[in-house]
Amino acid sequence: MRYNLRQVQSFNSIRVSPDHTILVFDRRLLQASPAFRRWAKSFPFQFAVKAGEGLKSLNSFSTFTEKVHRVVGGRANREWTVVAVGGGSVGDFAGFFASVYKRGLKLIHIPSTWLSAIDSSHGGKTALNLMGAKNQIGTFYPAEQTILVRELLLAQPTARIEDGVGELAKAAILSGGTWGKGLMRPTTKQGEWLWRNLPQAIKVKMKIVSSDPFETKGARQVLNLGHTFGHVLEAVQGLSHGAAVGQGLLFAIDVSERAGRLNEYDGMAFRNWLAMLGIEQTADPVREQDARKALLHDKKRGSGEDLIFILIEKMGRVRRQSVAVERLISIGIETGWIC
Amino acid sequence: MRYNLRQVQSFNSIRVSPDHTILVFDRRLLQASPAFRRWAKSFPFQFAVKAGEGLKSLNSFSTFTEKVHRVVGGRANREWTVVAVGGGSVGDFAGFFASVYKRGLKLIHIPSTWLSAIDSSHGGKTALNLMGAKNQIGTFYPAEQTILVRELLLAQPTARIEDGVGELAKAAILSGGTWGKGLMRPTTKQGEWLWRNLPQAIKVKMKIVSSDPFETKGARQVLNLGHTFGHVLEAVQGLSHGAAVGQGLLFAIDVSERAGRLNEYDGMAFRNWLAMLGIEQTADPVREQDARKALLHDKKRGSGEDLIFILIEKMGRVRRQSVAVERLISIGIETGWIC
Repeated sequence: MRYNLRQVQSFNSIRVSPDHTILVFDRRLLQASPAFRRWAKSFPFQFAVKAGEGLKSLNSFSTFTEKVHRVVGGRANREWTVVAVGGGSVGDFAGFFASVYKRGLKLIHIPSTWLSAIDSSHGGKTALNLMGAKNQIGTFYPAEQTILVRELLLAQPTARIEDGVGELAKAAILSGGTWGKGLMRPTTKQGEWLWRNLPQAIKVKMKIVSSDPFETKGARQVLNLGHTFGHVLEAVQGLSHGAAVGQGLLFAIDVSERAGRLNEYDGMAFRNWLAMLGIEQTADPVREQDARKALLHDKKRGSGEDLIFILIEKMGRVRRQSVAVERLISIGIETGWIC
Repeated sequence: MRYNLRQVQSFNSIRVSPDHTILVFDRRLLQASPAFRRWAKSFPFQFAVKAGEGLKSLNSFSTFTEKVHRVVGGRANREWTVVAVGGGSVGDFAGFFASVYKRGLKLIHIPSTWLSAIDSSHGGKTALNLMGAKNQIGTFYPAEQTILVRELLLAQPTARIEDGVGELAKAAILSGGTWGKGLMRPTTKQGEWLWRNLPQAIKVKMKIVSSDPFETKGARQVLNLGHTFGHVLEAVQGLSHGAAVGQGLLFAIDVSERAGRLNEYDGMAFRNWLAMLGIEQTADPVREQDARKALLHDKKRGSGEDLIFILIEKMGRVRRQSVAVERLISIGIETGWIC
């Protein structure tokens, strides 16, 4: 799987040909990042979009594609590049556009959020939603390059750092090794700390993705660690994806213990380590019927009422296992996640 | 490039699992082919579409996809198969749907027209139109299988045979060899004759496609032989694609002679051979301004006002060459294609 990750200090280090580029970006960045605003000026074909799940509708895709085609239609060809600057929704949307317009343009991701920098801008998945159901339309279309721009990512509000920590902790558990075990959150300059740890976390993901680029073998399912209950908290309580995944890791520890895959001593060590990263059980309990509905809706569903759940065995070792939804609910009730 | 071509006598020889299939078909087939109508009954998830370029709009794609999702959404997964039964527009449309729904289902083409049987159901291109411009959206998504069904193809009206002959002649010129040179059209049972010659013509196309599956190297451009002026006749005079390609081959012979690539003796031999296949210069001359507009609109345009034109050198040898639009027009005027 061809892949090219770059980390640069500023937009000035990026070499693209503006005349053959379709620049798609989160319109909020014009305010949030003066550096981006200056850089964007050199692009004759630029399209601001409103980030969020609404962007990923078929309707918004039609409108956008027709607009682009009116502006560049006659000129653009498959040698042109789509440069997507934004968070997960912008990357999913612009990536899908790049994969199907003229049967595929080149694609460069410049993630603007910690979450997209660590996760969604890597691995080649593009996506649109369908009648409110997430990611029902999409392609596997790896970017030629993902460029992490320091001045863009560090321009985010400090509060957004929490969004990155959940996926960082997930990558550390999947990876094990000295990097994972040694991960400690500093009390100051947490943005710098995330920035420095991005490449390792991305490497963990890309190693798993390369073994199953089209998600046909199940290997990629381990990336779902922490996501089963995380999705419930996102859906029911509106937690951010990053924060929800952090909580989901704690839930996965509880399930792993009760499934006999993790002894209590190791479970406690995991909880202490996550607490040092700032991840503790803080979510309000989810009502049983809401949890059931959200779990049954989970797209990683196995056969019947079972889910593929990712259990933690130890640092660097997880296990895919089919678990009944009702079993997850009774564990959730015992451990205070569900009421 | 994985590829699997099958020729079967009847629908009964096709083995698919109806319960995991999304059957998309040209609604006219329910009348035109009783054999298809009987076979289709066993599919619980079937979707009739109205064939034609209108089907390939983004709007029609949205409506269709939402309809399918309402019916099969919760059940379908990437192990399911889209079976597309119809001509070129149905194959382009259903192929695109298959390539993006759930990030890609399996795909089987069952072409119902000679033109799609010989050409569009092979080579992996899917397509939608954008604001009236053809094939501006699409993917490269080869079918797992293309199945040619004798009882379906021979159910077409005899008049449709002309549609297949143009592409058959093109394949013969590209191929050369004993098959190409020996191609003679019988006076009776012409459907049988097309049916027997399909595999050779498809083989010619697939050999070229395999050398350039994503159309990045230019090798695939030779498949455009006969299409430059063919598209003009389709756009301006509404000729069927097959008949237009036949005329376009004659135009290519005229251009090849004037470009000094084909001597008059060989040119005449080509014209005699095409006449035996039923291809003679029968199109009304196109008005100069209409021809210019259509040629400048051609999507295979090279740089500036030049086109990539496919010249014929001899049986089995063609040549890609950049030719000015005005040069094509003056040749067209000299040879009676343009007035």
